[in-house]
Amino acid sequence: METEKTAIEKLFFDYQDALNTSNVNKVLSLYTKDGVFMPTGGPSAIGREQVKGSYEFVFKAIELKLKFQIDEIVIIDEKYAFARTISRGTQVLRETGVKEPEEGRELFILQKEDGQWKIARYIFNK
Amino acid sequence: METEKTAIEKLFFDYQDALNTSNVNKVLSLYTKDGVFMPTGGPSAIGREQVKGSYEFVFKAIELKLKFQIDEIVIIDEKYAFARTISRGTQVLRETGVKEPEEGRELFILQKEDGQWKIARYIFNK
Repeated sequence: METEKTAIEKLFFDYQDALNTSNVNKVLSLYTKDGVFMPTGGPSAIGREQVKGSYEFVFKAIELKLKFQIDEIVIIDEKYAFARTISRGTQVLRETGVKEPEEGRELFILQKEDGQWKIARYIFNK
Repeated sequence: METEKTAIEKLFFDYQDALNTSNVNKVLSLYTKDGVFMPTGGPSAIGREQVKGSYEFVFKAIELKLKFQIDEIVIIDEKYAFARTISRGTQVLRETGVKEPEEGRELFILQKEDGQWKIARYIFNK
């Protein structure tokens, strides 16, 4: 169980890095094939193509520098887990250069695919 | 599996009724003992006492009339499931009487406790 938790923590560090470098391909590699992204202020993105489009849209608009704090990881079985996190940092609006503090709270459903923990469902709010 | 899905659908109808009648006790009966409610604009409510306080606060401020549309129910095992929903309807601000359209999108983690499907984690945004 402890190694599974460590693997999930690594997923969050990888996701944090992918956000902070605006790296769409890295984000996509962390999602399951049928993953769903439910961003505040945007439609739900269902599956790889929509998730790709959604992050391209976000990264074109803002530059993120966030740190994730993991509040809870619950491993359900060898294939499913869920987690609650808080993310804190800044976002820069690329169009204006305006920098703002950013804080969010997230709920993730994680699923093991091809031996790796990935993001299956992801929603956030504040 | 089909009867489990039906039982989870009933949970959502019961939750819808509890919201639409501002019934805190009914809401609480639909949460697991350690359930977590993550409302937009408010702190996470963790466990029965905090969840109670959070819904009391919401119901004092607004009157909801919502219908839930279930987009997805995934049964993980005999104890865990998750679901995505959309809720649509109206809210009335009790202080002013102003009525507004309300639409939200939800992610639920459901857990069987004492033989009943209940809400274990719940977050929404728009």
